[in-house]
Amino acid sequence: MNADSSRGIDFHQPIPLNYSYNRPGSIPGTITTIDRAVPSEITLIDYNQDRHQYATNLTPEECAEHLDTSSVSWVDVCGLGDRSTLEKLGRVFNLHPLVLENIANVPQRPKLEDYQDQLVIITQMANFTPQNQGFWLEQVSFVLGKNYLLTVQEEPQTDCFDPVRDRLRLNRGIIRQQRADYLTYALWDTIIDGYFPVLEVYGEKIELLEEEVLKQPTATTLAEIHRLRRELLALRRAIWPQRDMLNILIRDGHPLIDKSVLHYLKDCYDHTIQIIDTIEVYRELASGLMDVYLSAVSNKMNEVMKLLAVISTIFIPLSFIAGVYGMNFNTEVSPWNMPELDWYWGYTLCLAVMLAIALSLIIYFWRLGWLSNISK
Amino acid sequence: MNADSSRGIDFHQPIPLNYSYNRPGSIPGTITTIDRAVPSEITLIDYNQDRHQYATNLTPEECAEHLDTSSVSWVDVCGLGDRSTLEKLGRVFNLHPLVLENIANVPQRPKLEDYQDQLVIITQMANFTPQNQGFWLEQVSFVLGKNYLLTVQEEPQTDCFDPVRDRLRLNRGIIRQQRADYLTYALWDTIIDGYFPVLEVYGEKIELLEEEVLKQPTATTLAEIHRLRRELLALRRAIWPQRDMLNILIRDGHPLIDKSVLHYLKDCYDHTIQIIDTIEVYRELASGLMDVYLSAVSNKMNEVMKLLAVISTIFIPLSFIAGVYGMNFNTEVSPWNMPELDWYWGYTLCLAVMLAIALSLIIYFWRLGWLSNISK
Amino acid sequence: MNADSSRGIDFHQPIPLNYSYNRPGSIPGTITTIDRAVPSEITLIDYNQDRHQYATNLTPEECAEHLDTSSVSWVDVCGLGDRSTLEKLGRVFNLHPLVLENIANVPQRPKLEDYQDQLVIITQMANFTPQNQGFWLEQVSFVLGKNYLLTVQEEPQTDCFDPVRDRLRLNRGIIRQQRADYLTYALWDTIIDGYFPVLEVYGEKIELLEEEVLKQPTATTLAEIHRLRRELLALRRAIWPQRDMLNILIRDGHPLIDKSVLHYLKDCYDHTIQIIDTIEVYRELASGLMDVYLSAVSNKMNEVMKLLAVISTIFIPLSFIAGVYGMNFNTEVSPWNMPELDWYWGYTLCLAVMLAIALSLIIYFWRLGWLSNISK
Amino acid sequence: MNADSSRGIDFHQPIPLNYSYNRPGSIPGTITTIDRAVPSEITLIDYNQDRHQYATNLTPEECAEHLDTSSVSWVDVCGLGDRSTLEKLGRVFNLHPLVLENIANVPQRPKLEDYQDQLVIITQMANFTPQNQGFWLEQVSFVLGKNYLLTVQEEPQTDCFDPVRDRLRLNRGIIRQQRADYLTYALWDTIIDGYFPVLEVYGEKIELLEEEVLKQPTATTLAEIHRLRRELLALRRAIWPQRDMLNILIRDGHPLIDKSVLHYLKDCYDHTIQIIDTIEVYRELASGLMDVYLSAVSNKMNEVMKLLAVISTIFIPLSFIAGVYGMNFNTEVSPWNMPELDWYWGYTLCLAVMLAIALSLIIYFWRLGWLSNISK
Amino acid sequence: MNADSSRGIDFHQPIPLNYSYNRPGSIPGTITTIDRAVPSEITLIDYNQDRHQYATNLTPEECAEHLDTSSVSWVDVCGLGDRSTLEKLGRVFNLHPLVLENIANVPQRPKLEDYQDQLVIITQMANFTPQNQGFWLEQVSFVLGKNYLLTVQEEPQTDCFDPVRDRLRLNRGIIRQQRADYLTYALWDTIIDGYFPVLEVYGEKIELLEEEVLKQPTATTLAEIHRLRRELLALRRAIWPQRDMLNILIRDGHPLIDKSVLHYLKDCYDHTIQIIDTIEVYRELASGLMDVYLSAVSNKMNEVMKLLAVISTIFIPLSFIAGVYGMNFNTEVSPWNMPELDWYWGYTLCLAVMLAIALSLIIYFWRLGWLSNISK
Repeated sequence: MNADSSRGIDFHQPIPLNYSYNRPGSIPGTITTIDRAVPSEITLIDYNQDRHQYATNLTPEECAEHLDTSSVSWVDVCGLGDRSTLEKLGRVFNLHPLVLENIANVPQRPKLEDYQDQLVIITQMANFTPQNQGFWLEQVSFVLGKNYLLTVQEEPQTDCFDPVRDRLRLNRGIIRQQRADYLTYALWDTIIDGYFPVLEVYGEKIELLEEEVLKQPTATTLAEIHRLRRELLALRRAIWPQRDMLNILIRDGHPLIDKSVLHYLKDCYDHTIQIIDTIEVYRELASGLMDVYLSAVSNKMNEVMKLLAVISTIFIPLSFIAGVYGMNFNTEVSPWNMPELDWYWGYTLCLAVMLAIALSLIIYFWRLGWLSNISK
Repeated sequence: MNADSSRGIDFHQPIPLNYSYNRPGSIPGTITTIDRAVPSEITLIDYNQDRHQYATNLTPEECAEHLDTSSVSWVDVCGLGDRSTLEKLGRVFNLHPLVLENIANVPQRPKLEDYQDQLVIITQMANFTPQNQGFWLEQVSFVLGKNYLLTVQEEPQTDCFDPVRDRLRLNRGIIRQQRADYLTYALWDTIIDGYFPVLEVYGEKIELLEEEVLKQPTATTLAEIHRLRRELLALRRAIWPQRDMLNILIRDGHPLIDKSVLHYLKDCYDHTIQIIDTIEVYRELASGLMDVYLSAVSNKMNEVMKLLAVISTIFIPLSFIAGVYGMNFNTEVSPWNMPELDWYWGYTLCLAVMLAIALSLIIYFWRLGWLSNISK
Repeated sequence: MNADSSRGIDFHQPIPLNYSYNRPGSIPGTITTIDRAVPSEITLIDYNQDRHQYATNLTPEECAEHLDTSSVSWVDVCGLGDRSTLEKLGRVFNLHPLVLENIANVPQRPKLEDYQDQLVIITQMANFTPQNQGFWLEQVSFVLGKNYLLTVQEEPQTDCFDPVRDRLRLNRGIIRQQRADYLTYALWDTIIDGYFPVLEVYGEKIELLEEEVLKQPTATTLAEIHRLRRELLALRRAIWPQRDMLNILIRDGHPLIDKSVLHYLKDCYDHTIQIIDTIEVYRELASGLMDVYLSAVSNKMNEVMKLLAVISTIFIPLSFIAGVYGMNFNTEVSPWNMPELDWYWGYTLCLAVMLAIALSLIIYFWRLGWLSNISK
Repeated sequence: MNADSSRGIDFHQPIPLNYSYNRPGSIPGTITTIDRAVPSEITLIDYNQDRHQYATNLTPEECAEHLDTSSVSWVDVCGLGDRSTLEKLGRVFNLHPLVLENIANVPQRPKLEDYQDQLVIITQMANFTPQNQGFWLEQVSFVLGKNYLLTVQEEPQTDCFDPVRDRLRLNRGIIRQQRADYLTYALWDTIIDGYFPVLEVYGEKIELLEEEVLKQPTATTLAEIHRLRRELLALRRAIWPQRDMLNILIRDGHPLIDKSVLHYLKDCYDHTIQIIDTIEVYRELASGLMDVYLSAVSNKMNEVMKLLAVISTIFIPLSFIAGVYGMNFNTEVSPWNMPELDWYWGYTLCLAVMLAIALSLIIYFWRLGWLSNISK
Repeated sequence: MNADSSRGIDFHQPIPLNYSYNRPGSIPGTITTIDRAVPSEITLIDYNQDRHQYATNLTPEECAEHLDTSSVSWVDVCGLGDRSTLEKLGRVFNLHPLVLENIANVPQRPKLEDYQDQLVIITQMANFTPQNQGFWLEQVSFVLGKNYLLTVQEEPQTDCFDPVRDRLRLNRGIIRQQRADYLTYALWDTIIDGYFPVLEVYGEKIELLEEEVLKQPTATTLAEIHRLRRELLALRRAIWPQRDMLNILIRDGHPLIDKSVLHYLKDCYDHTIQIIDTIEVYRELASGLMDVYLSAVSNKMNEVMKLLAVISTIFIPLSFIAGVYGMNFNTEVSPWNMPELDWYWGYTLCLAVMLAIALSLIIYFWRLGWLSNISK
């Protein structure tokens, strides 16, 4: 199933920079998400070291019975679907109204909320657009309980979590020996690592723009640089709060997260630092590109002006001379009226003077170094 | 009743950036607000879980008897009216002179003041201008006591608090089961959520400007960008201190605010963060727009210069040739005086040379890529 | 008495940005102030709740006897006068040499110094220049002791403290019931509130410049913007440390300042925040103005270039055609030599071709939108 | 052996700004480094005050027996070689999978990780490119244990650590009397001091660019400035986290690092401060250079425009006059048709008028100061 | 003796921005200073309240005997001389190798190092260049012991400390009653106060540049502004760490520094704040100057373009008309061929039309306000 069709994402539109909000004055916990064409798809993976059970197309009520078992239950809700499903989920998982509001009214700024027996983590996932030319951000919410993890994805099934599902199914690594907190780490780590390939694309974009801006700056280049800055702003805004959230978790710990998992979260935190670090460098480069662009345009204009000045400066005096000898003063009424016209060498002399003027001007410009620049 | 007429807000004027102040050296607590044409309208809502009483057009003295009852009394003063009413209010609610000064001399920077048995909160509310093209800021002051909440709005009744009044009247949500602290939250939350639709308008403005600046930059665009930056500054200035105030309340708590309400204030605080976050992104975009504008203007000038240079460079040499053969040297006195004029193919040759020059220059410019840019 | 004449302030000069300093290596406490033409004028106000005594033209020694009385003694030294008076003051008030140095060698950066039994506060007062077009800064130093307050003003009597003197004389407000700490607050508050009207003037200046920069940017505008930025820098530098000083006093308290007065200082602190807040906004606007200026100048140049390009592009080809038919090729030696000259409709055709070229170019420019811009 | 050939570093390519990352969702600890053409070369130096043993071309297993001896064992792995060697190393040194991932997947952001009995330090070494025109960054990882130090260099043997090897071999200084912690300091100090000569090269580059930008700004200069800024960003990014790491070590200490060594690390820390300080200054200068460049280009264009304006303004009116007297009005049909043509002094007068116009314009431009600028 | 000759300081060279460093990998404590032409000159002043002994041209060994006496011994080493003298000094004063390295390898970033019984202070002194047009920085290192102070100056005797020497000799102020800690203060204060006159020169430079940039911006102005920014960066870099050092000393105290001296250091700290404050203001002004410069150049170009446009726009149509009537169409073959040439009022009419066109264009430009600007 294609994510685009479900919400009609227009990839030519700039990434939205507003957050979602309720009508001012509405009751806290109000869900204002519009009902989607595609209903939520609820998948359950129930596992422990020995067992791995996979069920799909569940209703919220069917999930309820798995929550109190000692095995780890991962309930994955793909797509926000309709309001009633979300409200049922809220009842089954006993979610605070404000939590449900944050899960349903997307996009929210990533945040961490601690409700004694539940840890709520709101994150943003960076997905590539179909032709890999940009990215779009999808909210993924985690509700971590004692034996279960609820994840709610803004859009219907896209494949970002598949490597983790495979690790669960095939019992690769240590994931099956661990609890829901490790699963939370594994999924969040997948989300965060997903920013790296996006950054790589932007790194290449910057290099292309650097070349273009110096060689052939056009109005399109300008629009590209501005768009790049805008998208880097959006990326930074999505990853920055996740860094803070990880930092708080590592610094303060949480009863639902085992100490051994904190070490993995530390690695995850390092990755957010690397991502932010790279984004900041890209932002500085993009900002520098704008300066370079302006300078390059000025440079080009300089060349144009030089050409105009050289041609004009050479021919204007010559044309003047030609104009003088095109005057119709009557040579017959006075020996002082344009006697040059009747000289034997008049024309030749005239051309010689013109040539002399032209040559001296050319030498002058050559010395100023203007001629070499133009021919370039 | 229309807010504009009461103070004659001129929506074509830029938003004022000064704060109100007393004449230097005046006695602390002096009220310098000018008497308004429209008197303050005092409304009382007295409620508990079972009861809801609404009274309007009260005098300050009539409010006094409600303050000590166990039910929650919300005294809402709409419009600053005249000085004497304010002073009476001060006596009835036992306000410190400096508090009264802050309530009356608008605008003040939002602030939080703690007077043992009263918590004073000065906020700024963002209202849309009539045609939704901009916003104006209105000071709303809260005085939270044990069983009462006094709110003072700068302008006579506008409808921003109506959803809360409805929730009180219709007993929607949990508001009637809660005390004055929850009411304070509900109203403040309404004020803060009111910044979101304003931001949305500015987000659209930025997108329009982005398009305009790249396609058709004019002096009006420039003025628009500058005005946008100015208004974002004003917005930031209004919301930033409110974030700090919420942070202090959440961090330190307050005897008048119940712990359960702090959780709601936390949500409110998250909203201020989202608003500030968005404002900062808009400010960066607006700042980038100015760079883009300058570059786009340079770009346009470049095109103009190229056209001028191409036309001049092609025709100036040709005109010179025509000028040469317009000279009146006497061909009869010398065979060296412009013999070309008498050649059989003279004119044809002359035109051919001109054509050759023109063509070679056109090819030269085409290779430089100047012709394609101009035709664009 | 006029302040200007006493030190010959030149209001056309930019505000000095250097601080005063002693010759490197000189003994700590050296007074390097030059002797002024106008001697210091020492005034004493000795008051308590019941009594108000005013004496003027005192010598430092005459003040001494009032210092140990239980009533509050305000010794106000107006003008730095000559060195010997200052040294006498130092002896009478038992000032540390470094304190005397800071009082006498103006200007100093505002600072707070704690000498067990004395609290020294160095502030900067913003006064309007005669025509209210700008401001100049005057250092006012406070030495707060147990029962006395010494204030030293850089310049002879200007009227900034008169409202406080009136409140003392007429026993308005609570000032006569309070001690020297409240008097310090009252005077300092007067100084700080004096920045508000100055800011108001700058707010208006910015609005005028905003209009000017978009409509008629000239070199004078540029100089005005630069001057504005410089003066805002000077203002910020004067108020910023005063905010820090108030913050330290409120946070840490001081034995010489009563707790009830701290509340008033908090209000004073809020005012410094408002002032700094406004200055920062003005600085951002002024900085944006520079960008707008550059863009507006580029815009104007663009218009000029367009006019030049339009006129040149239209007439240069026409002139070339006219030039061609002004050539003197001998039509008699060859039927190929400018036969057009002898055609019956030659001239008419020639004009028609010219008209056609001109019209098509005009249509071309009209489509590019260049003509509308020029006519504007 | 040449470092370049081994990974085909292209020194004309800009320095990569991305960090290495695993495919999102892969198992923590996955090594994704590609197998290199050149296998890792493992060298062991085993020393104490009396003994110095050097062995090369070891296998990871051969190193194992040295780790538990009381002498200090420095195992130096040059080049990342193939995956299996790295995995063997991980087993021999008992490395946490995440540590191995950080060592193998280069480049990582420098970081410090504390595993009770091992201290892991990831650093970046700045090496000169062959012609000393730039630098490339190589990751060097330290694993400090009780009696051993494992270093893993990204590239096969380059000579940066040779001075330390010599000090060990020749027993210079106090290095042989110290433990593995001092060795770690000595090597890290060598890495950090290696940034100084790189900075020196950039200092010289900036001075060359400063001269070039003022005298002969070309598009190449622009590209150079942008490249410089990019490379300074890369340098800052490599050294900044190393400063933080040193700061944490000095502030908190570590059981594996003796107190006496902390003093040396403090010196090392001071060097990182000096390096960062210098980079920041260079960055500010480079950023200023861009402004200067733009201004210089504008300046040059100004000169070109002035020349064009001077020549055009002088000759255009003159050409017009010549054009007027080149008109063919029939002087015979009317005494008002160009009678000047038949005047005795007509031509002379005409030339005189032209000369007068030209001279007065030249004087006008000379007064404006335009002529002096052009001749420059 | 002249400081310049000793190290051949070239005052036309920009101030070096690199710090000194040892070859990477060299033994900690290595002295890499080159041997100077001029040997170090060691001076001793041994004093207490009653006694003042001055000795010059001592060897390090001769100083040793004074160190343990109860009087204060100030050993002043002027010039770094040769390596052996420095090493002897290290032995006599029992300096840690890293301290000696910092003293000898100049320049170092100012820093504070605490070796139990010695406090090492590395500072930078700002000296004027001979013609007072700029400054150069000289490292002065302090080693404060119990009864002695060792100062090492980078260059041979310059007179900056003379006022302190005079105060010691003539027993002025309280310096002879104090210990080595007060002497350290007195000297360091002299160094810091030495930045004030340098700043004063830069303040004047900025004012000159402000005038120049608005009136007559040239390429030299541009170079001056860039140089100014560079030098302010160098100044800030020298004073900033000294502020931090003073702050640490005041905050934490030190066993070798008496509490009464801390008060004087506080004054010294205030001076560093004033200096940094002023530098920051200057830096903002210099940065603003660059904007003003660019705007002023654009402004000038605008004027040039306007002149060109006015002249061209007026004369190009006129020349075209003249060109038309210079065409040689044969008026005899057709009545439609330029009949105007044979009209009685033809020429007069033609001139009248030209005049009308010229006048209407002049009026048009006058209305646009272009003419007034040019004449300026």
